[in-house]
Amino acid sequence: MTELRRRLADFAAARDWGRYHTPKNLAAALSVEASELLEIFQWLTPEQSARVMEDAGTAHRVEDEVADVLAYLLQFCEVLGIDPLAALAAKIERNETRFPVPDPTASPHRHSSE
Amino acid sequence: MTELRRRLADFAAARDWGRYHTPKNLAAALSVEASELLEIFQWLTPEQSARVMEDAGTAHRVEDEVADVLAYLLQFCEVLGIDPLAALAAKIERNETRFPVPDPTASPHRHSSE
Amino acid sequence: MTELRRRLADFAAARDWGRYHTPKNLAAALSVEASELLEIFQWLTPEQSARVMEDAGTAHRVEDEVADVLAYLLQFCEVLGIDPLAALAAKIERNETRFPVPDPTASPHRHSSE
Amino acid sequence: MTELRRRLADFAAARDWGRYHTPKNLAAALSVEASELLEIFQWLTPEQSARVMEDAGTAHRVEDEVADVLAYLLQFCEVLGIDPLAALAAKIERNETRFPVPDPTASPHRHSSE
Repeated sequence: MTELRRRLADFAAARDWGRYHTPKNLAAALSVEASELLEIFQWLTPEQSARVMEDAGTAHRVEDEVADVLAYLLQFCEVLGIDPLAALAAKIERNETRFPVPDPTASPHRHSSE
Repeated sequence: MTELRRRLADFAAARDWGRYHTPKNLAAALSVEASELLEIFQWLTPEQSARVMEDAGTAHRVEDEVADVLAYLLQFCEVLGIDPLAALAAKIERNETRFPVPDPTASPHRHSSE
Repeated sequence: MTELRRRLADFAAARDWGRYHTPKNLAAALSVEASELLEIFQWLTPEQSARVMEDAGTAHRVEDEVADVLAYLLQFCEVLGIDPLAALAAKIERNETRFPVPDPTASPHRHSSE
Repeated sequence: MTELRRRLADFAAARDWGRYHTPKNLAAALSVEASELLEIFQWLTPEQSARVMEDAGTAHRVEDEVADVLAYLLQFCEVLGIDPLAALAAKIERNETRFPVPDPTASPHRHSSE
């Protein structure tokens, strides 16, 4: 991932795109790309959504949007000096406290927002 | 990143959240989290957006939303069997062809959608 | 709708919010509010999503997010001088040509992006 | 607006799209269209964003995305029996209480999320 961050930074620098890459613009671009990924799924049933990789053309679109989301996430983190893996590790630790594993002998609980 | 994917998968499995984690739902959740990150920036000027990490409270919110985006991106990739780093590496290679470095002796070109 | 547009404009002017209401910021805010509406539905099955108005608390949240989306859409249109009803009428006419009613005696066609 | 809602409902019914138009899918589609509107602005400065209607091609794209957002908002309201204008009127009244007009002789306050 470190190498990909460096390649993305070199790529933007070589094209003089740094002036467009404010944190605000990168957050907007990240959100736009995440919506493009969602667009592929918007009219599918849950069952159809589980089979999107069976069609080569759709599989390619999905991977392409995943790459765009990750690219803007890494560029956003780069300009603000954030380590995304450290941020996620810290979040997982907080969530393990916030959402304890339910006692399997107790009654089921509802899944709320994570 | 591999270890974080495993921890996220274990976390969801222990809470029996797998049935909620269809690709469609995870794509929607990813898009919702990316918007929560954008929300922090929506009224800021470009200059203010570059200084969000100077305030400890805002810095924590930003890192927290980055963690949420990455968590859903990794869970989405997990359920569909996608390698996000390989997808990004392939995309960077395609983009290096699609957006060649401009000849510095030529006239400047417009930055279009990436 | 005209009266609501005027009330929204007066509301923002009285609070001196005009300087925040660039078209770009309003487009970001509209997108953030649309995601907050989606958040209510992200883990629901299609069947559960059809029954959200049966619970008074959820019904209120849904109506509140609908109001936010419409408010930012109208404010966005206000600052750019767009008539949203005229834009929609023109679009419906274009779509009636683009997606002709299928001949009921022919074989069914796939629903693609609208 | 009532007439446009009816035309949208007739349009979807004639094409047998009702089965795709669950509240969840329409909320996702609304969010995707709002992001397509944001995409037009993502790399623009605040000043450039204020001038998007000066270029005929961009003006048409903006109006087209506004129409898509409004179309999905109205279809969403249709399937759930929500009156969007009444929801907005109620919200404006709540906001007039929540964000009182500041006393112009007092010190300025920060603009927070609306």
